[in-house]
Amino acid sequence: MRDELRADLLEVGRLLVSMAEAVRTAMGHATEALLTADRATCEMVIARDAEVDDLHRQVDQQVYDTLARQAPVATDLRLVITGIAIAADLERMGDLAEHVAKTALRRYPAPAVPPELREVITSMGAVADRMAGKVGLVLTTQDATLGAELETDDDAMDELQRRLFSILLHKDWRYGAEAAIDGALLGRFYERYADHAVNAGQQVVFLVKGETSEPPSVDQP
Amino acid sequence: MRDELRADLLEVGRLLVSMAEAVRTAMGHATEALLTADRATCEMVIARDAEVDDLHRQVDQQVYDTLARQAPVATDLRLVITGIAIAADLERMGDLAEHVAKTALRRYPAPAVPPELREVITSMGAVADRMAGKVGLVLTTQDATLGAELETDDDAMDELQRRLFSILLHKDWRYGAEAAIDGALLGRFYERYADHAVNAGQQVVFLVKGETSEPPSVDQP
Repeated sequence: MRDELRADLLEVGRLLVSMAEAVRTAMGHATEALLTADRATCEMVIARDAEVDDLHRQVDQQVYDTLARQAPVATDLRLVITGIAIAADLERMGDLAEHVAKTALRRYPAPAVPPELREVITSMGAVADRMAGKVGLVLTTQDATLGAELETDDDAMDELQRRLFSILLHKDWRYGAEAAIDGALLGRFYERYADHAVNAGQQVVFLVKGETSEPPSVDQP
Repeated sequence: MRDELRADLLEVGRLLVSMAEAVRTAMGHATEALLTADRATCEMVIARDAEVDDLHRQVDQQVYDTLARQAPVATDLRLVITGIAIAADLERMGDLAEHVAKTALRRYPAPAVPPELREVITSMGAVADRMAGKVGLVLTTQDATLGAELETDDDAMDELQRRLFSILLHKDWRYGAEAAIDGALLGRFYERYADHAVNAGQQVVFLVKGETSEPPSVDQP
């Protein structure tokens, strides 16, 4: 690979790592704000999503510039374009953190999460944090085993979502339809966040291994 | 534009139109199956999502081949790459139709939609159908006014989602938390389907107008 192309790809990688860090921080703050009904933190998460969107635009621009200036071929070409797909996954993770913050804000000053759900939401937040951290790490280290770990983490997230639904649907649920809907949507936000983390990680691995198959795409309920 | 590049782009466009038709049919069948608790149709929608995924892979492959063989630059380059983004939106619309079918199947043989929600779900299905039809049409005709119409349709979808939630959260709701959760998730599936339709349409318009700004990205609750 030529030096100029390598430098361009490093810049794309650097931007993607910044995005991964930003969406990890966003979901961390959103979960904390959700559990503490903290209005200021919710508003900060919502406001700062613009930074993620801006990084996304920078990645796209860098990819277009690289394609135009370097005209890479074969594996190099796929590598450059995959940057676009990873950035799209990361931006979506930022959006989902924003949705968690907006859900908390909609119920403010009441807490959006009743006591029975605190433990499972806390766990979902912890798994989300771990996964976003691994996406950043796989981007930096290109360690394919981290990609596999993301799938295990995603299984843990799916299990937590099942536990969440079993609480919402239990005959003893006493918070009514509104809180059940909030709980179900929150569960979906964390689960989708995890799906996009797996997808981003798999695409890095696809790059590293230079597979001839297509990059994976998020495709699950 | 060279003839070979034009031919390649026509092929990408042809595949995208097939995807738009497939995801329109899928959501149409899913809505019908949801309202009639029709198991066979649900299973067909779920099985046929593989065809959409296959078309998606074909678009990506065609785009990579085009980039490798034609090495387009400037506007042509953006035009080719935007095909990837549109295909990703269309695939996601197919996934969302599949989620509607899976929701119906999970309650089978009971209907997943109580009588109070039938009208609003029917309307959401009709708006989704209209929007997917317009995405196909904007791909074929490249008529930018259709892109603007998609935004108006999306406002109608958002309004329907608000009406849906107002029914779920009404004090007279008598179907419990489970049906409320299903209703909320179904509402989200239709609303996300509409968002991706807007996004796909806007990207076609972006291509036609050759804007220098970045293509739009789905970014809303």
